[in-house]
Amino acid sequence: MIKVGVVGGTGYTGVELLRLLAAHPESELTVITSRSEAGLPVADMFPNLRGHLDIAFSVPDIEQLSACDLVFFATPNGTAMTMVPQLLEAGVRVIDLAADFRLQQVDEWQQWYGMEHACPEYLQQAVYGLPEINRALIAQAALVANPGCYPTAVQLGFLPLLEEGLVESGHLIADAKSGVSGAGRKATTGTLLCEASENFKAYAVPGHRHLPEIRQGLQLAAGHAIGLTFVPHLTPMIRGIHATLYAQLLDADRDLQALYEARYGDEPFVDVLPAGSHPETRSVRGANHCRIAIHRPQQGDTVVVLSVIDNLVKGAAGQALQNMNVMFGLDEDSGLSNVALLP
Amino acid sequence: MIKVGVVGGTGYTGVELLRLLAAHPESELTVITSRSEAGLPVADMFPNLRGHLDIAFSVPDIEQLSACDLVFFATPNGTAMTMVPQLLEAGVRVIDLAADFRLQQVDEWQQWYGMEHACPEYLQQAVYGLPEINRALIAQAALVANPGCYPTAVQLGFLPLLEEGLVESGHLIADAKSGVSGAGRKATTGTLLCEASENFKAYAVPGHRHLPEIRQGLQLAAGHAIGLTFVPHLTPMIRGIHATLYAQLLDADRDLQALYEARYGDEPFVDVLPAGSHPETRSVRGANHCRIAIHRPQQGDTVVVLSVIDNLVKGAAGQALQNMNVMFGLDEDSGLSNVALLP
Amino acid sequence: MIKVGVVGGTGYTGVELLRLLAAHPESELTVITSRSEAGLPVADMFPNLRGHLDIAFSVPDIEQLSACDLVFFATPNGTAMTMVPQLLEAGVRVIDLAADFRLQQVDEWQQWYGMEHACPEYLQQAVYGLPEINRALIAQAALVANPGCYPTAVQLGFLPLLEEGLVESGHLIADAKSGVSGAGRKATTGTLLCEASENFKAYAVPGHRHLPEIRQGLQLAAGHAIGLTFVPHLTPMIRGIHATLYAQLLDADRDLQALYEARYGDEPFVDVLPAGSHPETRSVRGANHCRIAIHRPQQGDTVVVLSVIDNLVKGAAGQALQNMNVMFGLDEDSGLSNVALLP
Amino acid sequence: MIKVGVVGGTGYTGVELLRLLAAHPESELTVITSRSEAGLPVADMFPNLRGHLDIAFSVPDIEQLSACDLVFFATPNGTAMTMVPQLLEAGVRVIDLAADFRLQQVDEWQQWYGMEHACPEYLQQAVYGLPEINRALIAQAALVANPGCYPTAVQLGFLPLLEEGLVESGHLIADAKSGVSGAGRKATTGTLLCEASENFKAYAVPGHRHLPEIRQGLQLAAGHAIGLTFVPHLTPMIRGIHATLYAQLLDADRDLQALYEARYGDEPFVDVLPAGSHPETRSVRGANHCRIAIHRPQQGDTVVVLSVIDNLVKGAAGQALQNMNVMFGLDEDSGLSNVALLP
Repeated sequence: MIKVGVVGGTGYTGVELLRLLAAHPESELTVITSRSEAGLPVADMFPNLRGHLDIAFSVPDIEQLSACDLVFFATPNGTAMTMVPQLLEAGVRVIDLAADFRLQQVDEWQQWYGMEHACPEYLQQAVYGLPEINRALIAQAALVANPGCYPTAVQLGFLPLLEEGLVESGHLIADAKSGVSGAGRKATTGTLLCEASENFKAYAVPGHRHLPEIRQGLQLAAGHAIGLTFVPHLTPMIRGIHATLYAQLLDADRDLQALYEARYGDEPFVDVLPAGSHPETRSVRGANHCRIAIHRPQQGDTVVVLSVIDNLVKGAAGQALQNMNVMFGLDEDSGLSNVALLP
Repeated sequence: MIKVGVVGGTGYTGVELLRLLAAHPESELTVITSRSEAGLPVADMFPNLRGHLDIAFSVPDIEQLSACDLVFFATPNGTAMTMVPQLLEAGVRVIDLAADFRLQQVDEWQQWYGMEHACPEYLQQAVYGLPEINRALIAQAALVANPGCYPTAVQLGFLPLLEEGLVESGHLIADAKSGVSGAGRKATTGTLLCEASENFKAYAVPGHRHLPEIRQGLQLAAGHAIGLTFVPHLTPMIRGIHATLYAQLLDADRDLQALYEARYGDEPFVDVLPAGSHPETRSVRGANHCRIAIHRPQQGDTVVVLSVIDNLVKGAAGQALQNMNVMFGLDEDSGLSNVALLP
Repeated sequence: MIKVGVVGGTGYTGVELLRLLAAHPESELTVITSRSEAGLPVADMFPNLRGHLDIAFSVPDIEQLSACDLVFFATPNGTAMTMVPQLLEAGVRVIDLAADFRLQQVDEWQQWYGMEHACPEYLQQAVYGLPEINRALIAQAALVANPGCYPTAVQLGFLPLLEEGLVESGHLIADAKSGVSGAGRKATTGTLLCEASENFKAYAVPGHRHLPEIRQGLQLAAGHAIGLTFVPHLTPMIRGIHATLYAQLLDADRDLQALYEARYGDEPFVDVLPAGSHPETRSVRGANHCRIAIHRPQQGDTVVVLSVIDNLVKGAAGQALQNMNVMFGLDEDSGLSNVALLP
Repeated sequence: MIKVGVVGGTGYTGVELLRLLAAHPESELTVITSRSEAGLPVADMFPNLRGHLDIAFSVPDIEQLSACDLVFFATPNGTAMTMVPQLLEAGVRVIDLAADFRLQQVDEWQQWYGMEHACPEYLQQAVYGLPEINRALIAQAALVANPGCYPTAVQLGFLPLLEEGLVESGHLIADAKSGVSGAGRKATTGTLLCEASENFKAYAVPGHRHLPEIRQGLQLAAGHAIGLTFVPHLTPMIRGIHATLYAQLLDADRDLQALYEARYGDEPFVDVLPAGSHPETRSVRGANHCRIAIHRPQQGDTVVVLSVIDNLVKGAAGQALQNMNVMFGLDEDSGLSNVALLP
């Protein structure tokens, strides 16, 4: 049994991680920390866990966490970087579900996250935890930077096109729509039911923190600089991301459906739908899959890729568990084989 | 492995049963029938099942079904009764998720369901599938009538009070609220998103088919006739039932919290919350639990019981699987141990 | 033109009041105050008001407010009572949309609202602003206590029965369901979309502040003490209250439909639906009507009354405007004749 | 008073038209037809109209309709074209809210709508009812083709750029999101609450009927052929369209904010938001406004235009009323000055 610790865990990413860990057959949650909720049984905060998880929040303690094989950080940005070096030195492996180690360039990180990075020397060593790209590196990694939700949906949608150099990469467009849980469990006016329900809007059009993360991944896939316009939207639902991706084809003769099916044929969690499909976010609700469809409307030179995930699963906690499975040599879908909840 | 057949399965009860069966370790789905969808792979209709269930709908065929150990009927009312006698004769055990065998009195059944019963002689032999009452009978049953969604939530909430004779049983009130999936997957104007969303209403106040079913169960528990006012409401959400139950206490000194905890202490799927709690429907979303809280506002003589279930799980498919587990001597929570999806 | 001031106005009650005032032909909004938002144009906070209302929030100032004919308080409980005496002395009439003047007994008020009342001598002088009871008094009032949302729906539903002494008044039950806007615009975890959507729960079952307000009103109508169990529920929608009321009939022969139609026949905003109806909250969305239906299920001795309002209109801002119309001798439906938004 | 007839009126476009007509001071609804609902009082179908509209559906009758000054068709596609010639001959003016007269080329119409056009000779004579382009023509028109919902939002967003030739017009992208009411009130599985709620998906990516309509309008504005990729999405809410538009700038120095403010400065129903804004669909819920914001993320050469409308108002019934006002020389905002319902 892998001894697991969770730092944070009072947010949506945290409770989702707990839901998945409760069903994971080869790990054991030994500690979960929350400074503000220390002493509170986890199931008192999240009643869905009653009868499944008999553990209370405790004050974060490096010594206690050092007894774990793996520690997940489900904390706000800027927390993991203050504790990770000590844990790594203690031989603990770490998966950070926040953004502290997602960008390789410290100046870019500091610009977008508006703070100084506490341990910039770890940025290059951290492995970006998108198994569909970095599986081998993840298996060996001490520190995994779990990807953001938008970046997961967008990168999986664009990758085959960029890896093959099939599109004009200077003007990629990612029009992404997210459920409200992507904004977290913190009480803010904008995410109240009465503000976000029966409403639809774009936000952060001038610039969103996931833009540099997506761009970094796409550039690695393309092998050169790319141009990306990324527009996120808030959608009146709890879970789900739908990325609608646009690019201009350089080669009109390539069979894109076959390309995607080949690229993802062995991937346990990427499902390329039959030609002509329209994936629904609910088809992955609570599940770790990314479902993708490829279109060329009116057989023109614009390719449209539709990519859906559950932002809390493949976009956060599920992908973290997938990374754990890879890191510890388990079946990659261990604890992740549940069927999406529909309706 | 238990060989399982499903008749019907294109509705919400059906897809939920398929979701649960896909994760059930000791059964094997060998046939699923739908006259209208024969030939269609199940996962083409319900994309959440892609990769989990590789079977297509077939035309209902008694011979094929007779090779099963157990057949579930997830059909509209009035279908199961036309096939059940043949299956029982063939030695197949049956769980009907519809209402064909829920009432013991044929005249009452015919009055409320507006049709003639095709095999009234089976009404007395069918076992009402509420394990919290009939566990021993279910274990031996050839034919189980799976309870309705409202009846499950309301009976589990009232049972301890009536079994102990603690309330004035002539004026029980059950004010129940259901998500829209209780109305099924049939296209009707009233259940369109634009009609049922951002809206709340009572319906069927003059009389709902679940009234006689609830009354029958409560009378058996009480040992005498009872009076019940049952008002169902349509709630703008997909899943969940919240029953708010009112009764006048005859004995003001009894510790109701202790009573409920004792009554349900050994029940794997009934969770009595701590005193003062307010159960939320989302705490059981996708899970087979019923969570209950008991209140006596201002220490008066009115008891208020709050009881929540997921109408598609404990109120339908989950309870059916629980009954299967009981019938075949499996662990009662086999395939039913998943954590509710929250948020 | 009536010169109107609004104190508060950054919450849902406030923006609804502004929406209605913008369309009111015989009043003029001359000042709107908010300490926290002073200087901000109202339409910058509420973009629906762009082009309709060209005024900015200002710091509350008694002198400025004293130049108004009428001041509305759309503030949290406990604010109006600190300013009302000065305004009344200055000859300004006041409608308080909060609870400061709703209860006649100061000790009861202080018990339920958990603070000392700043001007208890005004409690008896304030007129409870339910025009269906107090129209004549409201017309003359200097200070009107605008009723709460639940109290409006529940009282209008019960009044005819209690005024005529037709029910056993010791065990009245009000099972009420509210949209989330009733909780206000303050950022709290419980009213986040991800907490309140796809969820249903009761709250405050041990005791809600609207209980004493409802009880006070019903006792005045009945002419004697009554017993009431009031259970509010949070419903996953923005607007609307549905009250389901239960009582035991003392006189089974009375024509209740005729009684209600007679009682409310001249009321511009109470609509008694035809026998057998089920009112929907959306039928009053954005409108000032209360729609009511009366049932006697199975012709038993339990009467069920269904009463719906928009909690922000008839339950708050619309009723306040109705009171203003009554106070200033205008047509009672001036500015309130809009059709509910459906769908 | 303008004598108005409505053909159809049992759908969402119809009830919205009735809501607006009920408040319109200079028109009188004299007949409303529905073959299926003949005899039914309108307010029995739509309870929000109780007390506002005392008229019943009648069987469509050309003679009766010929007594009107204006007839609105709120019918499915293909109905208006069978009656319009007779009405026009009788001197009645017509506004068709369906698509029968929106395309100028009959072959294109027949291809996209899959039926033969009953009166192709009227296609060229019909005026496309987008007042922001065709105000003068509409004023004189006998037959107005009221634009589709997506075409209104997309055209108003793109027009200034195309009229000025500022963007590469061969690869325009319109990523549009619509509330479910755009699909109408017909009972279909895909628009059930349990299918469309808590879900997001694209649809009709290979080709949607609004594509040729948008393309025709944009080409007229540009003065030459354009290339457009149009991807509509179904959003889990009742009302609202959000169009996110992408184009590559040819001229990076032009002040786009000033351009839009100048283009729409005199338009009563197009509101250009301050630079940096993100319009919300709820800011126009129930109102006839289109609100627009213009962005150039990271000062690159991609322009992003955000355009929101209420699909049932500016996207259908409200625009129809606006057209009526223009046709009959009334104030253009007569009956359309209500404030959007927020929250």
